[in-house]
Amino acid sequence: MKVVYLSGGVGGARLLDGIARAMDPAELTAIVNVGDDFEHLGLTICPDIDSVLYTLSGLGDEARGWGLSNETFRALEMVARYRPGESWFQLGDQDLGTHLARRQWLAEGVSLTDVTARLACGLGVAPRIVPASDGPWQTFIETEQDGTLPFQEWLVRRRAVPLVRAVRFEGGGVASDAALAAIDTAELIVIGPSNPYVSIDPILALPGMRERFVSRAVSVPVVAVSPIVAGRAVKGPLAEMIPKLAARPASAAAIAAHYGSWLHGMVVEHGDDAALRSELPMVVVHATQTVMKGREERRALAQHVLALGEQLVSRSGR
Amino acid sequence: MKVVYLSGGVGGARLLDGIARAMDPAELTAIVNVGDDFEHLGLTICPDIDSVLYTLSGLGDEARGWGLSNETFRALEMVARYRPGESWFQLGDQDLGTHLARRQWLAEGVSLTDVTARLACGLGVAPRIVPASDGPWQTFIETEQDGTLPFQEWLVRRRAVPLVRAVRFEGGGVASDAALAAIDTAELIVIGPSNPYVSIDPILALPGMRERFVSRAVSVPVVAVSPIVAGRAVKGPLAEMIPKLAARPASAAAIAAHYGSWLHGMVVEHGDDAALRSELPMVVVHATQTVMKGREERRALAQHVLALGEQLVSRSGR
Repeated sequence: MKVVYLSGGVGGARLLDGIARAMDPAELTAIVNVGDDFEHLGLTICPDIDSVLYTLSGLGDEARGWGLSNETFRALEMVARYRPGESWFQLGDQDLGTHLARRQWLAEGVSLTDVTARLACGLGVAPRIVPASDGPWQTFIETEQDGTLPFQEWLVRRRAVPLVRAVRFEGGGVASDAALAAIDTAELIVIGPSNPYVSIDPILALPGMRERFVSRAVSVPVVAVSPIVAGRAVKGPLAEMIPKLAARPASAAAIAAHYGSWLHGMVVEHGDDAALRSELPMVVVHATQTVMKGREERRALAQHVLALGEQLVSRSGR
Repeated sequence: MKVVYLSGGVGGARLLDGIARAMDPAELTAIVNVGDDFEHLGLTICPDIDSVLYTLSGLGDEARGWGLSNETFRALEMVARYRPGESWFQLGDQDLGTHLARRQWLAEGVSLTDVTARLACGLGVAPRIVPASDGPWQTFIETEQDGTLPFQEWLVRRRAVPLVRAVRFEGGGVASDAALAAIDTAELIVIGPSNPYVSIDPILALPGMRERFVSRAVSVPVVAVSPIVAGRAVKGPLAEMIPKLAARPASAAAIAAHYGSWLHGMVVEHGDDAALRSELPMVVVHATQTVMKGREERRALAQHVLALGEQLVSRSGR
């Protein structure tokens, strides 16, 4: 079964890792958000792509949730001697190796799609990792009091403190050919437990993407995994964003309602299923343990997600 | 006394460090070769400027002779996973911090002269460190059998194995304003124990430099320190280059003859003075220990150099 997985960073990457272990990874394509990508110190940083690559390669720092394990920050400490204002975004020494290689390929005219494939190859990552766009495509946060901030400035530099009024996406980028081709041939689409507003929406908002996605969702099931557990976000600022952007408390149902009619199935934490079922009876809900602590829990959750997907595929009679 | 010092990398940097300790560093300007500079992994690498900065800051790796002490190479190891061909030039993690800061300033339109001043400030380097040119200005090695190679390709990647037929310099760069201004106001000019062909010549060959230098040398003394000791180079490929480029054995006298009539004084190793005196009687020769092992020996050699300079200044009656 050809599975296409839409992913943001950390949480999305963890479940993707589980799915890659629970099925033939040659049948798995991840379309990864690029809205967080930004230029820093002359390098092109792709936080979500890198989280996916590092997590799937087993080189990621599991405890910290971003970057590489056993990372050092000696280059950045040196930069801080010269340019103290530049060290707000933590770039590890090994991580820099990724950014230098990427930058060099991009400067040689290689597309971000092909650069990402080469990085995945270098790290021994088996599933196809596809940027949603070859860019440019950037997420901006419109804040209540501090104007409009690029996403990483808001999230990392300002620690997500300025209150969100709206999220928008800008840039001349369109959906990448590889992402569209993956959608066109998908037999199951999985939306990872990522932030819908700043991880999944920037994928779907790309020119060319939403029509292809929605039209594919007519014939193949779309299953999401809730990033909200008992009203809280497993990681990141999502739980505070939902009341601002959807004018309702954070819940799995709020996520499903945001995605709308193309969502066929949802995997949620035990206890979050009743409210979702009652609000959105057309969504097939599966409740299980969704918080993943180790690699085995990722694989277990992945098996639940794939089982729900297979159930929906067979129910649709294909 | 305003001292201007012409320098290549390691050897030149070590004596410069001694001179900076033997006099008021506010009176000292180093004009540093940029002919070795090259682009690598999207970064502008300035090997001689960096050797000077790292040596004078006390952060340099004294045993290895290049780069920073306690250096790690984790970024480059990561690059090698992706682009195995790129790791021939050893870029340390801390060193990368310098290159990233430099690249960012250059991208912002700051001149190499001002970038170098900012790097020196960040490292607490007191003497003025001036690039010979804001570039571009590149040294090429014409080899016997392998065509023409950029200097670092020849020295590092090819380990200086291809035999040298000629050295040439190319690029639209001219002598930097700061270098010319330093020459114009110098009261003593010191040529470091650097390779004349690939460290000092690329400075003097810059459009605008030789005339100003030779005209200043009419009124102020020029003192060189021999990079050849008992027929051998203290470091690097110089001893093999002299027979190829000057058709004579390597010696302090060969260095002095190469510099020509503007050279007034030379500091050489004990035992190298007699041949020099007999071949070039107009050069005032001072013999002492020129091989510098530690910082104290640098300072001691610097005192000999400055003493010879002062002797020549007072002899000229100014």
